Amino acid sequence: MNVFDFETRLDPAGDGRFTGRLHPGWSIGAHPNGGYLAAVAVSGLRAALPAHPDPLSVTVHYLRPGLQDAPCEVRVEVLRTGRTLTTARATLVQDGGSRLEVLAAMGDLGAVGEPAIAIAPPAVPPPDACVMRSGGEQGVTLSILGRLDIRLHPDEARAGAAGRAQVTGWVRFRDGRAPDPLASLLFADAFPPSVFGLLGAVGWVPTVSLTVDVRRRPVPGWILCRFRTEDLADGRLIEDGVLWDEAGHIVAQSRQLALVRRPGSAS
Amino acid sequence: MNVFDFETRLDPAGDGRFTGRLHPGWSIGAHPNGGYLAAVAVSGLRAALPAHPDPLSVTVHYLRPGLQDAPCEVRVEVLRTGRTLTTARATLVQDGGSRLEVLAAMGDLGAVGEPAIAIAPPAVPPPDACVMRSGGEQGVTLSILGRLDIRLHPDEARAGAAGRAQVTGWVRFRDGRAPDPLASLLFADAFPPSVFGLLGAVGWVPTVSLTVDVRRRPVPGWILCRFRTEDLADGRLIEDGVLWDEAGHIVAQSRQLALVRRPGSAS
Repeated sequence: MNVFDFETRLDPAGDGRFTGRLHPGWSIGAHPNGGYLAAVAVSGLRAALPAHPDPLSVTVHYLRPGLQDAPCEVRVEVLRTGRTLTTARATLVQDGGSRLEVLAAMGDLGAVGEPAIAIAPPAVPPPDACVMRSGGEQGVTLSILGRLDIRLHPDEARAGAAGRAQVTGWVRFRDGRAPDPLASLLFADAFPPSVFGLLGAVGWVPTVSLTVDVRRRPVPGWILCRFRTEDLADGRLIEDGVLWDEAGHIVAQSRQLALVRRPGSAS
Repeated sequence: MNVFDFETRLDPAGDGRFTGRLHPGWSIGAHPNGGYLAAVAVSGLRAALPAHPDPLSVTVHYLRPGLQDAPCEVRVEVLRTGRTLTTARATLVQDGGSRLEVLAAMGDLGAVGEPAIAIAPPAVPPPDACVMRSGGEQGVTLSILGRLDIRLHPDEARAGAAGRAQVTGWVRFRDGRAPDPLASLLFADAFPPSVFGLLGAVGWVPTVSLTVDVRRRPVPGWILCRFRTEDLADGRLIEDGVLWDEAGHIVAQSRQLALVRRPGSAS
């Protein structure tokens, strides 16, 4: 079993509950990454809904930071089951407190044909000509980079250098695990905030809500990502992401509402 | 009281429950419009959360069609209250069945200053030079057009004419009520599906999930809207919307996952 599968694995505990552990290898600083938390919660939905294993549209609201290297429970509540879609809630609980709340439409992506309309992938140098992401600039330990190999566009790898709020690049698991819809949730929150490209490493950019619409199962290989902020006012920003597989197909789109916090400011 | 306020009004029924009625003036065909349903549910959140009246980020999953001219109950459950944000669920129930499920971050938008980054509004002729939306092409009665005055860009007013999956135009209440964040939820789902601009009136485009991030309280006047589909595959599309007020500021962004159904196909 690959590391991501092992470290998002949950055991059924009856009555729509699943228990597992948040592992420390997916953290940003002292807390599990938001994409990892989303993947753990959705792995509970997958376990509860074998006929509809794929997250088609997932919205996550982050209530409190997750606790790394600690047990967790995912509580699933099915709201409606149809032939092609199941709508469900999932709540990830640790130490008696809800950490994130998920509302999701689950289905079966099967084999998706050629798109009728698609966003063309951006021109990004191949992974070997990009810059491997390191944690230096953010001033926190990025344990997640031991799990994920992230390569940033050389023009966008240094905070403030891009001159625009955009970051593009490539991502894959370091252990060779192939990408899939669960990985798309993780990858949608694994890049540096795109606003760093314009403003520099401004501090902490906590996510309020993250929606990921998963569009297809990727082919094996790298995932190409583009994240952009085109709307920032009063310390609240919208970041849009698009993820493509090596066949050039869109595998997911993401949108998040995030806050821009200067170091030391209160939430 | 204006019609929209009256027809989204709820009465407290204790224990986080609010009761009201879905009025028939906001329907598409025989069912209440999805934006109207969202506004009714969020009016329950507003009533429950007086310190955090503005929907900052709202995700709606549509479970079953709403019933027009029938009573409804909105059930609110607060998940976390903080100083600047409250996260809560709302469920709209009619006739014993959940019709839609909402997950929302509520706050207080107050007065938002000049944006640091913004999407410029598109060039659209003034409302008087646009085409008033009528229900003819969709083959259903659009009662909602008795409540909303929608003016479409003349190049995009006829299904299939735009040659691209985009629709732009203006919207306001017919009775002169000023726009506000609750109205932004309604307006985010009141235009013809943008995919009609490319494919013609393809039939039924039911929304699976709709996320609206409200960015500021609008100034009085028309709201300018742009909806686009840049991703359509296997009968599932992503539609992105941006709403601006007459001061040229973004007041909301929307994203929905919708299905493209040919007439007569099953859900």
